[in-house]
Amino acid sequence: MALEKINQVNDIKQIPPEEYEQLAGEIREFLIEKISRTGGHLASNLGVVELTMALHLSFELPRDKVVWDVGHQAYTHKLLTGRKSGFDGLRKYGGMSGFPKRKESECDCFDTGHSSTSISAGIGLVAARDLLGADEYVVSVIGDGALTGGMAYEALNNASRLTKNFIIILNDNNMSIAENVGGMSEYLNGLRTNEVYTNFKSGVEQSLNRLPGGAHLANQLKKTKSGIKQLLIPGMLFENMGITYLGPVDGHDIPRLLDVLRKAKRVKGAVLIHVLTKKGKGYAPAERHPARFHGAEPFEIETGLPKKKRRKANYQDVFSTCMVKLGQRNEHVVAITAAMPDGTGLKRFKNMYPERFFDVGIAEEHAVTFAAGLAAGGLKPIFAVYSSFLQRAYDQVLHDVCIQNLPVVFAIDRAGLVGSDGETHQGIFDLSYLSAIPNMHIMAPKNKWELSDMLKFAVGFDGPIALRYPRGEAYDGLKEFRSPIVYGKSEVLYEEEDIALLAVGSMVKTAEEVRRRLKEIGYSCTLVNARFVKPIDTEMVRMLAGEHRLLVTMEENVECGGYGEKVLGAAAALRLPVQVLKIAIPDEYVEHGNVEALYEEVGIDAESVTKRIIEKYITAGRRSGEQVRTE
Amino acid sequence: MALEKINQVNDIKQIPPEEYEQLAGEIREFLIEKISRTGGHLASNLGVVELTMALHLSFELPRDKVVWDVGHQAYTHKLLTGRKSGFDGLRKYGGMSGFPKRKESECDCFDTGHSSTSISAGIGLVAARDLLGADEYVVSVIGDGALTGGMAYEALNNASRLTKNFIIILNDNNMSIAENVGGMSEYLNGLRTNEVYTNFKSGVEQSLNRLPGGAHLANQLKKTKSGIKQLLIPGMLFENMGITYLGPVDGHDIPRLLDVLRKAKRVKGAVLIHVLTKKGKGYAPAERHPARFHGAEPFEIETGLPKKKRRKANYQDVFSTCMVKLGQRNEHVVAITAAMPDGTGLKRFKNMYPERFFDVGIAEEHAVTFAAGLAAGGLKPIFAVYSSFLQRAYDQVLHDVCIQNLPVVFAIDRAGLVGSDGETHQGIFDLSYLSAIPNMHIMAPKNKWELSDMLKFAVGFDGPIALRYPRGEAYDGLKEFRSPIVYGKSEVLYEEEDIALLAVGSMVKTAEEVRRRLKEIGYSCTLVNARFVKPIDTEMVRMLAGEHRLLVTMEENVECGGYGEKVLGAAAALRLPVQVLKIAIPDEYVEHGNVEALYEEVGIDAESVTKRIIEKYITAGRRSGEQVRTE
Repeated sequence: MALEKINQVNDIKQIPPEEYEQLAGEIREFLIEKISRTGGHLASNLGVVELTMALHLSFELPRDKVVWDVGHQAYTHKLLTGRKSGFDGLRKYGGMSGFPKRKESECDCFDTGHSSTSISAGIGLVAARDLLGADEYVVSVIGDGALTGGMAYEALNNASRLTKNFIIILNDNNMSIAENVGGMSEYLNGLRTNEVYTNFKSGVEQSLNRLPGGAHLANQLKKTKSGIKQLLIPGMLFENMGITYLGPVDGHDIPRLLDVLRKAKRVKGAVLIHVLTKKGKGYAPAERHPARFHGAEPFEIETGLPKKKRRKANYQDVFSTCMVKLGQRNEHVVAITAAMPDGTGLKRFKNMYPERFFDVGIAEEHAVTFAAGLAAGGLKPIFAVYSSFLQRAYDQVLHDVCIQNLPVVFAIDRAGLVGSDGETHQGIFDLSYLSAIPNMHIMAPKNKWELSDMLKFAVGFDGPIALRYPRGEAYDGLKEFRSPIVYGKSEVLYEEEDIALLAVGSMVKTAEEVRRRLKEIGYSCTLVNARFVKPIDTEMVRMLAGEHRLLVTMEENVECGGYGEKVLGAAAALRLPVQVLKIAIPDEYVEHGNVEALYEEVGIDAESVTKRIIEKYITAGRRSGEQVRTE
Repeated sequence: MALEKINQVNDIKQIPPEEYEQLAGEIREFLIEKISRTGGHLASNLGVVELTMALHLSFELPRDKVVWDVGHQAYTHKLLTGRKSGFDGLRKYGGMSGFPKRKESECDCFDTGHSSTSISAGIGLVAARDLLGADEYVVSVIGDGALTGGMAYEALNNASRLTKNFIIILNDNNMSIAENVGGMSEYLNGLRTNEVYTNFKSGVEQSLNRLPGGAHLANQLKKTKSGIKQLLIPGMLFENMGITYLGPVDGHDIPRLLDVLRKAKRVKGAVLIHVLTKKGKGYAPAERHPARFHGAEPFEIETGLPKKKRRKANYQDVFSTCMVKLGQRNEHVVAITAAMPDGTGLKRFKNMYPERFFDVGIAEEHAVTFAAGLAAGGLKPIFAVYSSFLQRAYDQVLHDVCIQNLPVVFAIDRAGLVGSDGETHQGIFDLSYLSAIPNMHIMAPKNKWELSDMLKFAVGFDGPIALRYPRGEAYDGLKEFRSPIVYGKSEVLYEEEDIALLAVGSMVKTAEEVRRRLKEIGYSCTLVNARFVKPIDTEMVRMLAGEHRLLVTMEENVECGGYGEKVLGAAAALRLPVQVLKIAIPDEYVEHGNVEALYEEVGIDAESVTKRIIEKYITAGRRSGEQVRTE
């Protein structure tokens, strides 16, 4: 076993070249076996086994620095840097992260998670190196999918100015999570099939050489400064931007990779190596269905089928069905995704109404302003996007949609804690960043029926409106409560006294459980489904404040700028002796782990909430008495 | 006078071609005369007079749609669409906006303000047109500076898929506000000087033609599908992305512009016309100093010198001086700007420490992650950026800087109301969007000395930290209060009882005036300079709440997610009978106008605040009594 010899960084350098292939095979076997148990990103990792080996063979980590774009493809890197044992706890609570983490290893030089950041970070590391007079290598590994993100282009535009070495590896597997889109993809396709290169080498140059004086001309052409060079060099798009292009090279051929890396090291300035890899390489089910094995649940190795059968519908399934219906009823409805047709559940809409479906690639900024354009042009665009990725388009929401008050619907998926992807992917900021924006409206459904009702409401609404719902299984309780959605109005589920719970979206289910527990020990509880986070239902707050001693707001969002602060503001304005307890996510990043463990960690699970309510209620009673006395 | 004949949209079509030049001259004269009185964007508008005329001659507005990127170059467009009389009130309170506004004219099809949005919006309008079965033309006009913004590239990447006409005008004046930077700029430079084109036309093709069989080869080359074509066609970078390239064409030659627009209309799909213009064209001082005449104050036409002499230093001057000193003391200090070396005051730092200064172009996303890379590499980066432009990099602040807790300093300029640029440029959201981010720290200085002290503090701080300060004249009052900056601590300026004013940054000056007015009518007032908005000084809130009946928070930021909500939260937790009055900007966009008028409009000027405090104080007293009775 070659893999047994790999226990810490640079151990790979002791492996003789004739064993590279064997090691690659063992790494694949290891990854497949481990991920089949824990779940995780499989396809992307299988694609970069040889590339990662070649990087570790060519560079001196942790002195040299490798930045992994997105970072979900860094498993082999983790394996080669002493973290083999971490794979049993991969993405579990307290276990190893599925992404590079500086706090996990000094071989992880920059944390990633969202797409298209690695070139910017790499240029920063290069500039720091050069100013500090050091000479380590800096390598940024970026996928072709991530290259559709605008900030990658902003970075390439800046990379051209470097005068010392900076290596960009374009890991081209011809996919983002789904199929790639757009002009850049088409262009890479051309390079990939080697057309430019081959055409010239075997065509034009030979033709020229055959002509009298042609050889001289061919040489002259190679020497000219600009556009003419385009004839001779593939990757001219990069060369045009001032970046040396090397490749394309087979990303599963270690000797060729080592060779091109040697060449790249000699370049003064930014150099891009175009590496062709195959997503899922070496595991047939993943090669066939790379999207399904992007972020995989635990699976049976032989069949590739998930171990756990899904019983209940996800919110994404509900969204999917609803979108198909809305598309049928209203031909002005159009749908947009930024490279997530499967994850968001838009695939069926795409299949039914291909001309009204737009996958813009990993390009959230464009997606939002494009949606604004569609709305200004008279259509009703619905942008389905993960909460943490919409952060990328904050300015576009504020500047292009909301100033003009355009009727764009934001279907915010993965809102709240998402679990095993951790810090970078938790959707716990959207209520805050969206509700400070004038003209924006925000809703959150308590269960799957309400998601459907709210989506219909949103499509009929004349202004920017967002609805946010969590990852995974759709709550199918509280079916009996299905009053029509009324603008700005909450929904009373149970009306009692003493304590009023005001819960947002996913927290209604928790609030129901909290109410049950509180009732068991003799507390009387009103339960209100907030429905609207912006505008909040101030009339409801006034009513509740008059009839209860304690208002408890519950939301799966950070406290700062969230629902609780708005309710507190409304309650404070009333000057009634009501107390407000804000249950929200504290002011810190939340790491990976299963969602239930995370709920406990941040104190928003039913048990913690119940305890905090009882404490507050008791204190509230006592203090309230004190207050009377002090006056 | 040809201009006299222009009173509404399409009137220009009645002007005979031989008068075009005269009309262009008159438009320039008109703009120079008006802007010399009102101030406004001069240089960019003088550059596009003929281009705008050509667009209005070629298209049928408002049926056809023109999207102006950034929008500060739309003055001639306004002039040609019946808004001549608006120029006397240009950018004034209640007057005509300096940017396109849908609510101002049906000829303004999409509002702009920030850079690089026009292609995305244009593609949205195109897609809506095509789905609705209409056939109007859609034209997006974008500057070469705006093309360094990532979202423009995301849009180009998507434009390649269009199968029906979409015209992109690249208004290439070889500048953003300052000089352009990066690979794209270099590339355009190559096109601009026509090197590719000329080299081929007069060089290679002729050479080939002179060879036996060469003509045939040249023809063959033209027919090949991909890379080879690069030899023959300029603008291959765009062609590579699937966008037809036409140009370059002289942007001051109307017949040539009309001709190329005719050609562009016939293209099925996206077509980019490369138009070369000169910023400031036709007005010598603006041609010489286009940056100074970017956003100009009223000036003397003959000399180009500003009418009003500045007496006091701006915050930008203070920042500038301080940066030079910090750069001298600490060689790890590096400075970043996104195309604003002049506006932010970094020019002197650039001149003194060119190797530690980075202008990344209009690319805020890259700027922030690049800063994160610099910090991870051991340096101390300071990103000087306008508040409203930092919105573009919200995710990068959250995801790349703050998760890793990297010591990046954000010098947030133009925070608060900026005045005549209006809705898109008001810096009134930063306290909200930044304070919800874990690990972030936020300060605001009360006067020019405190800006300097805070900047020093920030450079010594080990984590992400922002300081925000307003546009324009630096406050030089309260000089006697200069206690050292202590982490998380506010500064008490005057200590009395009854009412406590807690003011953030720019509002300390207003609070001082409010306090003076209140004292005159017998109220006793404590005045606290908040200094830190995150973390807030809860100890101070506790102390003030114990000793005052009313806490008044004052901030130049929207209420939602701002300082006031945090103070209210802290006060509410104390359960003392104190009331909190939050003075902040209400939940709406604030239009253009001079800052004083805007303060009044949103109710944060000294008079309004004083009134609101008195009202609240009286009510607080009465209600407080009621409260005792109800208990």
